[in-house]
Amino acid sequence: MSAGNTALVISAHSADFVWRCGGAIALHQQMGYAVTVVCLSYGERGESAKLWKQEGMTLERVKDARRAEAEAAARALDVHDIQFFDCGDYPLDLDRAQKDRLVDVIRTVQPSFMLSHSQYDPYNTDHMYATKLALETRMIAQAWGHNPGQQVLGAPQLYLFEPHQTEQMGWKPNTFLDITPVWDKKRAAIECMEGQEHLWEFYTRVAQQRANHFKRNSGGQSGGRDCKYAEGFQSIFPRTVDEL
Amino acid sequence: MSAGNTALVISAHSADFVWRCGGAIALHQQMGYAVTVVCLSYGERGESAKLWKQEGMTLERVKDARRAEAEAAARALDVHDIQFFDCGDYPLDLDRAQKDRLVDVIRTVQPSFMLSHSQYDPYNTDHMYATKLALETRMIAQAWGHNPGQQVLGAPQLYLFEPHQTEQMGWKPNTFLDITPVWDKKRAAIECMEGQEHLWEFYTRVAQQRANHFKRNSGGQSGGRDCKYAEGFQSIFPRTVDEL
Amino acid sequence: MSAGNTALVISAHSADFVWRCGGAIALHQQMGYAVTVVCLSYGERGESAKLWKQEGMTLERVKDARRAEAEAAARALDVHDIQFFDCGDYPLDLDRAQKDRLVDVIRTVQPSFMLSHSQYDPYNTDHMYATKLALETRMIAQAWGHNPGQQVLGAPQLYLFEPHQTEQMGWKPNTFLDITPVWDKKRAAIECMEGQEHLWEFYTRVAQQRANHFKRNSGGQSGGRDCKYAEGFQSIFPRTVDEL
Amino acid sequence: MSAGNTALVISAHSADFVWRCGGAIALHQQMGYAVTVVCLSYGERGESAKLWKQEGMTLERVKDARRAEAEAAARALDVHDIQFFDCGDYPLDLDRAQKDRLVDVIRTVQPSFMLSHSQYDPYNTDHMYATKLALETRMIAQAWGHNPGQQVLGAPQLYLFEPHQTEQMGWKPNTFLDITPVWDKKRAAIECMEGQEHLWEFYTRVAQQRANHFKRNSGGQSGGRDCKYAEGFQSIFPRTVDEL
Amino acid sequence: MSAGNTALVISAHSADFVWRCGGAIALHQQMGYAVTVVCLSYGERGESAKLWKQEGMTLERVKDARRAEAEAAARALDVHDIQFFDCGDYPLDLDRAQKDRLVDVIRTVQPSFMLSHSQYDPYNTDHMYATKLALETRMIAQAWGHNPGQQVLGAPQLYLFEPHQTEQMGWKPNTFLDITPVWDKKRAAIECMEGQEHLWEFYTRVAQQRANHFKRNSGGQSGGRDCKYAEGFQSIFPRTVDEL
Amino acid sequence: MSAGNTALVISAHSADFVWRCGGAIALHQQMGYAVTVVCLSYGERGESAKLWKQEGMTLERVKDARRAEAEAAARALDVHDIQFFDCGDYPLDLDRAQKDRLVDVIRTVQPSFMLSHSQYDPYNTDHMYATKLALETRMIAQAWGHNPGQQVLGAPQLYLFEPHQTEQMGWKPNTFLDITPVWDKKRAAIECMEGQEHLWEFYTRVAQQRANHFKRNSGGQSGGRDCKYAEGFQSIFPRTVDEL
Repeated sequence: MSAGNTALVISAHSADFVWRCGGAIALHQQMGYAVTVVCLSYGERGESAKLWKQEGMTLERVKDARRAEAEAAARALDVHDIQFFDCGDYPLDLDRAQKDRLVDVIRTVQPSFMLSHSQYDPYNTDHMYATKLALETRMIAQAWGHNPGQQVLGAPQLYLFEPHQTEQMGWKPNTFLDITPVWDKKRAAIECMEGQEHLWEFYTRVAQQRANHFKRNSGGQSGGRDCKYAEGFQSIFPRTVDEL
Repeated sequence: MSAGNTALVISAHSADFVWRCGGAIALHQQMGYAVTVVCLSYGERGESAKLWKQEGMTLERVKDARRAEAEAAARALDVHDIQFFDCGDYPLDLDRAQKDRLVDVIRTVQPSFMLSHSQYDPYNTDHMYATKLALETRMIAQAWGHNPGQQVLGAPQLYLFEPHQTEQMGWKPNTFLDITPVWDKKRAAIECMEGQEHLWEFYTRVAQQRANHFKRNSGGQSGGRDCKYAEGFQSIFPRTVDEL
Repeated sequence: MSAGNTALVISAHSADFVWRCGGAIALHQQMGYAVTVVCLSYGERGESAKLWKQEGMTLERVKDARRAEAEAAARALDVHDIQFFDCGDYPLDLDRAQKDRLVDVIRTVQPSFMLSHSQYDPYNTDHMYATKLALETRMIAQAWGHNPGQQVLGAPQLYLFEPHQTEQMGWKPNTFLDITPVWDKKRAAIECMEGQEHLWEFYTRVAQQRANHFKRNSGGQSGGRDCKYAEGFQSIFPRTVDEL
Repeated sequence: MSAGNTALVISAHSADFVWRCGGAIALHQQMGYAVTVVCLSYGERGESAKLWKQEGMTLERVKDARRAEAEAAARALDVHDIQFFDCGDYPLDLDRAQKDRLVDVIRTVQPSFMLSHSQYDPYNTDHMYATKLALETRMIAQAWGHNPGQQVLGAPQLYLFEPHQTEQMGWKPNTFLDITPVWDKKRAAIECMEGQEHLWEFYTRVAQQRANHFKRNSGGQSGGRDCKYAEGFQSIFPRTVDEL
Repeated sequence: MSAGNTALVISAHSADFVWRCGGAIALHQQMGYAVTVVCLSYGERGESAKLWKQEGMTLERVKDARRAEAEAAARALDVHDIQFFDCGDYPLDLDRAQKDRLVDVIRTVQPSFMLSHSQYDPYNTDHMYATKLALETRMIAQAWGHNPGQQVLGAPQLYLFEPHQTEQMGWKPNTFLDITPVWDKKRAAIECMEGQEHLWEFYTRVAQQRANHFKRNSGGQSGGRDCKYAEGFQSIFPRTVDEL
Repeated sequence: MSAGNTALVISAHSADFVWRCGGAIALHQQMGYAVTVVCLSYGERGESAKLWKQEGMTLERVKDARRAEAEAAARALDVHDIQFFDCGDYPLDLDRAQKDRLVDVIRTVQPSFMLSHSQYDPYNTDHMYATKLALETRMIAQAWGHNPGQQVLGAPQLYLFEPHQTEQMGWKPNTFLDITPVWDKKRAAIECMEGQEHLWEFYTRVAQQRANHFKRNSGGQSGGRDCKYAEGFQSIFPRTVDEL
């Protein structure tokens, strides 16, 4: 059990945290973590095709719809706190003040670990920008001279969650998390994404495939642990342990 | 505590297990693991320069001296079992029967994790051969049709221990193990290697540098755990976890 | 249409060609290609766990069962010719005569393209051995001085089909093939693999996920071609074209 | 034949499109494509040494000369449309409005494929900046919420054309295009670059070497197609095909 | 001997040049080089934890202390010229004017070689930013149209000096420099860094380990040259030589 | 000047040393080096297409012709010693005795540096086998216990010479050697290869392109040294130096 622990998700667009680490969020909330999600944008321009195909759509209406969906999904996952930075998407670009706001969130949350996107994504430069930002703001949050007096950040792991086409992004998972106990919550959150119904089954299958990998890597046909749904993550920093 | 667990070290030459994972061995023994070490060769031709510089040296005398050193080091580390395969070195090359013998050891030990060399080493092709062998024999040990009736192997992690010039070998540690509690044992084992005294201080410094990395990755100047000696490892397979 | 063309699959174990490129086989057969499959082993020791769990099983009975399954699958896929080399598995290892036999097959088939495994696979060294072999025998088949008088091989593409855990194998697909028209055949072939029923749904989902990638890469939400089932391949050699 | 198709070249400096993909341009024009070239800068500061060595040279006169050369080369290649963005070079840096202008061009052209520089170039950071820009603006052009009402972009391939020192740039061609039929046009375009006469023979030899690679990869000494001049390209995205 | 030669160090924070290439500086000064060091920032926010833990510390006082330390270290190393750009740290970010100032320094110094950080550093994005900057400004300094009339830069090597955790940064040294003759100067410079006393022994051990690598790569146990302290560097550009 | 020095070339087939490092050989001979060339095979089966197209050709006649060509080329390059191991090609495969013979040559020559092929070559597995062999035998030659009494090898650099399609082989040159002074000798040696006349111009152009890279990397348009012909090499091991 990890009561008192916290985690932070940095999501480029408002739906990313659902598909990519919804299970990790719900599972850690259930273990007593307080998980904060920061949505840097709503994905209002680039990830809302279905909405834009409606007559008379406006940017504000798209943002409202996306925010409502994300909030519903966050509730389904028991997210502790969700914050919308509304920095704009396609391209996503934060100025110094917005970066400082993110540093403030990191310092307030003091996450045990952080979650963000893959480091490379030729399809979606917003994703790699978010990860670059995660590394930069993590570094700033560690600086004793940044807003002296605030609590300085330790060295939380940064996990990269699963991108859409893993091999094209050079993403290699080194950690599989069993999310079977909270799958219903993740599926419920997924179904909040009404504008992207074509992805519901896609990400359900992702979880099933990763469950197969979980079983294989925990022992395969000789003692592998059964698992129905899993998520994969790539960690950036080395682990420090007392037992291999 | 992990009483009942086991681990297996596959060492190309008889001294490698001391420099590269002596701390891990002693630490896990202390935790209740039974650690088996397989020395594929004595390093009698390629890693015994000091002995060969003596007048009238013979291959058998070198092997005897190397074996005595390794056994003394194993005792210093509380190794559960050490086996010498005597396959020859520079180059190391196992035939099918010797590979089957290694598979037998793997199945008998049923290790929770395995340890071997880096996957690339242009200075020492025996080292990469040993790792290739570790992967091949691990696979055979998992085959239900290999010696049916024997207990089949699960999916133990393979950790690659630290090579001599890490960057040239493309070795990247993702796990740092605090070996401070057993440092005295590792140093005693190191001092059993009389033929390679020039390396005693070198590997002591390696442990000190890795301790610095341990501290940095566990929190650095804001909560990093103090650590005086550490060892680094690169894992090959993904972890399967219930908490990030 | 490509009547008269041929293709060659080099499969380490007798079931690999079904899961990994069954769609490509059936599709090209339907286009008029004659596809030859070489199974280097039956996977009798390493990939027949279900059979070995039966009372009184023997190596010959496992091989017979595996061969029967593979032949049934080949029929379901309309394979032109399937050959069993019976070289043994876990580990797979060919001697010079067996390599020469493979070169003979390559020269007889004169494939427009070849298919084999990923170049790296820490879980299954037989797979990477098969690919190494494919490159070596392709080279020999190109040698004018090897069995002079035989027709020398041109420069067929070598496609690497999808391994089990793509990211761990460093496999990156650069070609997606729409296999929707022959999906029923592939599924029928999959169901011939009675010993590995746990993989039927897994590889069905693989095909569905790759169909999503097919759609995305052919235009996505703006003109992407609908596709229900696809297979991914990584090509080794550059293409030579008259139009980009 | 591909009448009605279009292509788009994004060239960091005004001469890059000539050396690196002049053959592809002329060839596709000849096949009925309409090829648009965007020169982000004139290369006025960094790639006009010969001009700057003249007495009394000014930035405007360099730009004029470079523009005249590029327009002449474009005519030699039958370029459909050439646009000069005049964003400045060494370093090249586009503001938001200039990026939006590029997105507009992409949407207007609706290219079947795009061409730009290698992803890494330690000698010339403008080159890698241009490629980064190509990916970013391609993504924006795909966003339904970017200038709603405009035609949204599909998923055109991005080909990276040949940099100066390929191995230093980590560029690996996977596609060779036979440009023999239009070589005279490419050579004529090359000779328009009066300020860089030292490169005429260099890039002629590049085309000859790539022709050798074309022949080798299309069959070598056993059926390889003869080819006198070729260009090489590295594609970023997977292909979607109906035949391997 | 190389009298008349020059070198340029681009250091993200004011202490980096001491730990990472202090030996190279002192050694080349001793050989007659004039070495210029540019400190882009003081590391006042991110690398001055000890100072910030003091009561009533201010940014200016930290900068003053860091500058005094760096100047003392520069004297210990016989640095020819040290310049403080004071661009701010965590994050480090230069505007166009500051970049132009750096280009001016490069042109004035006309370095035989340059030194900067590793190309990747997930712990410290300032470090990789400095290297990116080194490449960009090197390119601008080579442009004939940048401030016409100034002396244009040739093609100096860029050496990347050793980062803190080499393997995590993907840094691979290809050059070891024997700094034994100037070790006392480097150690004296290190001891000027009063705020980071915990690193004194760490970087002393780094030099000792690199000396071991120097010996090994110059002949090992058969003719290797003895060396007590060394520094490692990774060069970016190919060498041009008259003898291998 | 380096009178008394030696170098060793390990060439998979009897013509490789001519195309790939003929300039380096002639140049170092001219400087006083004694260069030994070992041809592991004649390339009799795989690289003698033109001969095999002649009526009634036999393996012995091909070998004789290839040997005569290689000897003539060696004379043209002033090679000190050329040895033919006749191990067979396509595939090249050495047994233990043949490897020991190579170790003997290495120890006798005591090379200042060694030259061999790229580490990866999907077109020609003999090439990468030769490099693997070079590393293995270099290691054995360093072993004090291998034939005790012989002079043990130091740590000579291993340079990888230029393969046919550099980018496909993952070969990256880090050293360019000016071979202009001996170009006539290299061209004469090239013209000894009567069976591969189609490659004469190809490798002449390679030398011209590398000369361009030599000039660029030695200063480019600002002080770059003129060079008409060059060869490129990739070194495996770090250099140990007293000046950067």
